[in-house]
Amino acid sequence: MDSQVTDFSEVPQLYKRHVFACHTQRPPTHPRGSCGAAGAQPLWERLGNRIGNDGLTDVGFTVSGCLGFCSAGPLMVVYPEGIWYRPTTPEDIDEIVETHLKNGELVERLVMVFARA
Amino acid sequence: MDSQVTDFSEVPQLYKRHVFACHTQRPPTHPRGSCGAAGAQPLWERLGNRIGNDGLTDVGFTVSGCLGFCSAGPLMVVYPEGIWYRPTTPEDIDEIVETHLKNGELVERLVMVFARA
Repeated sequence: MDSQVTDFSEVPQLYKRHVFACHTQRPPTHPRGSCGAAGAQPLWERLGNRIGNDGLTDVGFTVSGCLGFCSAGPLMVVYPEGIWYRPTTPEDIDEIVETHLKNGELVERLVMVFARA
Repeated sequence: MDSQVTDFSEVPQLYKRHVFACHTQRPPTHPRGSCGAAGAQPLWERLGNRIGNDGLTDVGFTVSGCLGFCSAGPLMVVYPEGIWYRPTTPEDIDEIVETHLKNGELVERLVMVFARA
């Protein structure tokens, strides 16, 4: 690679996919809300366990600070596709694991909707 | 979009690029090391300030928990390209901002080297 690489597809990838899940916890009465206050913790625990137990070694899983859009939480984002999901139940987590992380298909019903700038 | 979307390029993107920077802080004597112990905090502060002050509204910036590879820190990763950088000086941060985040070119000298599985 020379000093002006713009075709990033030639760079080897550590993970096929990398999930970031917001761990922000604000008090329940905080006006901004938070993913933690919306019940994120057990969902991310399940997600991490599924990724580990199902042997998805090509999927990275990292907790994150605030991703913004706090009132829409719990929020997670999957890269490189850049898909923001807002799961609320264990079944939602399982569907994201099976459909997106394993099969590479969008779980449209769980995508966070945002307005384009 | 139907229920089996696999071409994610049709999904609108919230950010052009999204930077995650590890904020893990372990004690200096911890055997695993940590990005915090390696001096990450002022680097990420500079990175966040640069992204904000330079008006890079299409770049997301989120702190993260442990990304792994702790002895290689400070570590940050840029998606969707999936490029892991290990900046150690303010000048490194500036180069990543100017070269990658603004111009879309790889800063090869700062890429974390890893062995493929």
